[in-house]
Parts: sequence; C-alpha cells; structure tokens
Amino acid sequence: MAPGAFVLSDDAAVIAPRAGHDLVVTTDAIVAGVDFFADDPPATIAKKALRVNLSDLAAKGAEPFAYLLVLSLPSVDAQWLAELARGLAQDQETFALSLLGGDMSATPGPLSITVTAFGHVPEGTMIRRAGAVPGDGVFVTGTIGDSGGGLAARKGVLLERYLVPEPPVAFGPSLRGLASAAIDVSDGLLADLGHIAQASGVRIAVEAERIPRSDALRALWGDTTGAIVRAATCGDDYQIAFTAPLAKEDAMTGAGVRVTRIGRVEQGLGVLLLDAQGHEIAVPRKGFAHF
Amino acid sequence: MAPGAFVLSDDAAVIAPRAGHDLVVTTDAIVAGVDFFADDPPATIAKKALRVNLSDLAAKGAEPFAYLLVLSLPSVDAQWLAELARGLAQDQETFALSLLGGDMSATPGPLSITVTAFGHVPEGTMIRRAGAVPGDGVFVTGTIGDSGGGLAARKGVLLERYLVPEPPVAFGPSLRGLASAAIDVSDGLLADLGHIAQASGVRIAVEAERIPRSDALRALWGDTTGAIVRAATCGDDYQIAFTAPLAKEDAMTGAGVRVTRIGRVEQGLGVLLLDAQGHEIAVPRKGFAHF
Repeated sequence: MAPGAFVLSDDAAVIAPRAGHDLVVTTDAIVAGVDFFADDPPATIAKKALRVNLSDLAAKGAEPFAYLLVLSLPSVDAQWLAELARGLAQDQETFALSLLGGDMSATPGPLSITVTAFGHVPEGTMIRRAGAVPGDGVFVTGTIGDSGGGLAARKGVLLERYLVPEPPVAFGPSLRGLASAAIDVSDGLLADLGHIAQASGVRIAVEAERIPRSDALRALWGDTTGAIVRAATCGDDYQIAFTAPLAKEDAMTGAGVRVTRIGRVEQGLGVLLLDAQGHEIAVPRKGFAHF
Repeated sequence: MAPGAFVLSDDAAVIAPRAGHDLVVTTDAIVAGVDFFADDPPATIAKKALRVNLSDLAAKGAEPFAYLLVLSLPSVDAQWLAELARGLAQDQETFALSLLGGDMSATPGPLSITVTAFGHVPEGTMIRRAGAVPGDGVFVTGTIGDSGGGLAARKGVLLERYLVPEPPVAFGPSLRGLASAAIDVSDGLLADLGHIAQASGVRIAVEAERIPRSDALRALWGDTTGAIVRAATCGDDYQIAFTAPLAKEDAMTGAGVRVTRIGRVEQGLGVLLLDAQGHEIAVPRKGFAHF
C-alpha cells in the first residue's frame, strides 16, 4: 500500500516549536468534480491539494514547512497512487516541505484530498484579515482570472494555472510588517476582498482597469468590462490580495513577484468595482459560492 | 451560513508554542456510509469526528487543546448544521478544546468530516509505536468489541459506543514515562497491535481469555473463541493498546480507567492470539482493511 515516496502509516506526528516563532496552520480540501477533474493527472491533483494550502499560508506571511494528508479514495490503484506520490514529492522539494503523516480511507463518493499545512512566522507577526484601514492601498500579486479562463477553455498555459496553481509562496514572508491585511484569492478577487472589508470594517474600492490580467487571458476573453468582471469573480487564482499603507508601495518589489495596486481602502462597508470614470460597475455575483 | 457556535470563515490560525512542550498533530476523516450513517444524529457525527482524533492523541500521551474542521457537504441544511455545531460545542466543553478554523465545501458525494487535532506533550515525551521490547507486558484500556457489537446489533448501550466513542483522553498523559509503545484501537485490537509489533520489530502474544469484554457484549455474542476473535478484530474501539515494563503495572491505576494486561512482548515478528493452553488461534483477518 505504501507508494514509496510517502508513508501514511503513523497516526500522529510531533512538531518541536521553533524558538521565537508562532505556528500557522491551515486546512483545505479539494474534491473531484468540484475542484479538479477525476481524470486529471494524479501529480497535478497532488500539487493543487498542497498549493491551495500554501496559498493560505503565504497570505498570512508564513513560511511553510510541513503538512498532513488525508486521502479519501473510491478505489486503490497502485499506479495512480505512485503518480500522486511523485507529485507530492516534487512539491515537497520545490517548497521545502515535510509530510508529517495522515490517513487514507475508502469512500463511496468522489475522490477527495484534505491537506493541513503548517508554517512559521516570527512571534506575533501573522497577517490577519482585520487590519485594513481607510487610506491604505489595495494590492494584488500576479495576474487575475487565468485559472478561470483555463477552466473555461480547457487548454494551454491557462489550463495549467487551473490544474497547478502558482501561489507566490516566497513572497508571503515579505508581507510581514508591510501588509495591514491579506487574503489569498480563491473564491474570487472581489469576494475575497469582501472578506477583508468585512473583517476590517472598511469599504474597498477597486478600479476595474487596474486589475492585472495576462495577455493570454485578454486574448481569450477580450477587454470589455464584462471580461474584467469575469476575471475578478471567477476565483481559483491563488494570488495574494492585500492592503498596505501607500507609503510602503516602494517596498513591494521583492521576491521577483509582480505586485499591482488596484484600489484603495475607504470608510464604509463592502466592496465596489469602479470604471474609469469612477462610476460603480454592478457585479451581481462577486465570486464562487460553495452552495 | 455561520451556524452560531462555530465560525469557519478564517483560512488559517495561529498557535503560540507552549514553553518546554512539543506539539502533537493528528488528522482523520470520517465518511458517511463508511464510518457513520448519514442519518445518524448530527451531534453524534460531530463527536465521532472529533473523538477518533482525540483517541490518536491520547495514545501518544498528548493533552488535546484545539482542532481544525473540514466539512464536505452534499447540501446545506441550517438545522442539521446547528445540531452539528451543538455536538462540537459540547465536546469542546468536555475536552477543553478550541476550534481554530477550517473549511466548508460542497461535494457531489457523501458527507465527510476531516478533523486535524492538536495536543501538547512535554518536550521529547511523545509515545511512539516503535518502543516495545521483549519482556514488556501488553495492556489495553476499557473493553474491546463494544462498538463492533453495537454496529452489528444497532441497539442499546453498545450502539452508543459505535456512534460516540469514549476514548480515555484523560488517561493519555499518564502513559508518559510508563508505556514503551502505544496505539489507539481503531482498525481492530490485533491489527493495531500488529502496527506496534512491526514498528518495534517484536512479536506480540495476546491471551484470548484476558481480552476485556463488557457484560453487554458477552450477552450479545457469547464466550466462544469465535466471539473473542470477533471482538479482537472488529475495530472502532478507540481504546488504547500499549506495551510497558511489567514492573510498572502497579502504576496503571490512575485516571479511573480500567487497564487490563492481555499479553506479552516477545522476540520475533507479528501478532499471535493464544488460547488457554497456549496454542495459537488462527485469525484469518486481524482487523478492518480500508480497501
């Protein structure tokens, strides 16, 4: 049963504390037919399961170091498991992670993978959702909408973004002392900024034309307002959206990650999308709703 | 969406280290149709999801303090969720646990709940599976087979054991400095002792007649060798099986938990079940196989 590269045989694992650091933990499940397709390559499924969690940790300013894995499988195929293990092993190497343990069990339903990921931050420095204040700028890493475009088109480099997210893990720690609030973009840019707005008790105004979109996505969906709204609501981006004092904008060019200022934090509540004239664009559905 | 007693809205949580202690983590999923019935009372489903993890922590000698929760739901029913939250809240109180966060997502398949539980042990004292040495005694807490009997009969006090396990959580810490190896009994007593035997590189001999069984189970299944084998292999017990030097047997009466010596550790490999004459009882299937 043990597919070589990983052993799920122990029930529990021990983590020795790192002096002067807090432990940050996050957990997220991916389910076949919802977050991936059951016939996706097992190695890419493995990487998505890990990276949706690494994305959470990066948005908290944490450096990932370990994870636990729960596999719920409708059946066991040794070849499939070996490929899954290969994907996990590759990302363990890429992100310097250890597999601490986990569990494998049968399910009558679709395949699902739950990962619990662990990271460190220097004591008291975890970035929360609740720190945004009026006057802050609103920023986002990378480009937005690629994964949604890839899912819709099922082809090319954009599809790769859906299958294997590229969260800016190395950039996460540079958010400490810089971001006033942060979140990873999974439900959709506007929906996730809404979580910051709600937790912080502020209003977030986003300028539609500032939202960074890749050339491939613009070629696919065009440059209409509708295309921008679609990118800002399709989700599965695994980039980091954050707020920070405008005075700190120059400090954001580290780690080779593209950072774009897309709006500002105001008094009030909620999230607004604005056109070039500063008028509100109606957005009936700000992101992915789980139900 | 937030059903009052718990909030799953944050993506990550922070754990400040406890000085001089290691963190012990474990994760386990329960799936409708496999580990519980979809129409079981939601509060009992919640407790089972938590307790199968608390059982793991107890076997490691850890004191539980917190958990993360991932709910994969085929649909959302506010009343059902409120009942689930009530069950969680009750066990949070019973076991002094905090819910750190988690995730809720849709699944086309059966309901499943994955819990990641956290406990503390004084630095370096986590009990592993690999410490059993020839000459040690083999011990088990509580009684064995009740849950399996309850599942078979679907009635009475035994069924309660299946629905809501009663792991000896308070006894876990007293295993430190006492047990040479420990495991919680989930797959089946003989299968789980097999995990200790394999990890420790020893043989474990169990005397069938010493295996503690409740009066209710004896009334249900009788006292034949077959009944004992059934109890020792049906699993889902969530008691602790452990090895310890015989000289420490007197120290095991703490925490109001029944502890029974059921066998001994020998040189060799594997697990043997012995009758009153010391002859091996053939056991074709030592416990629950996930596949």
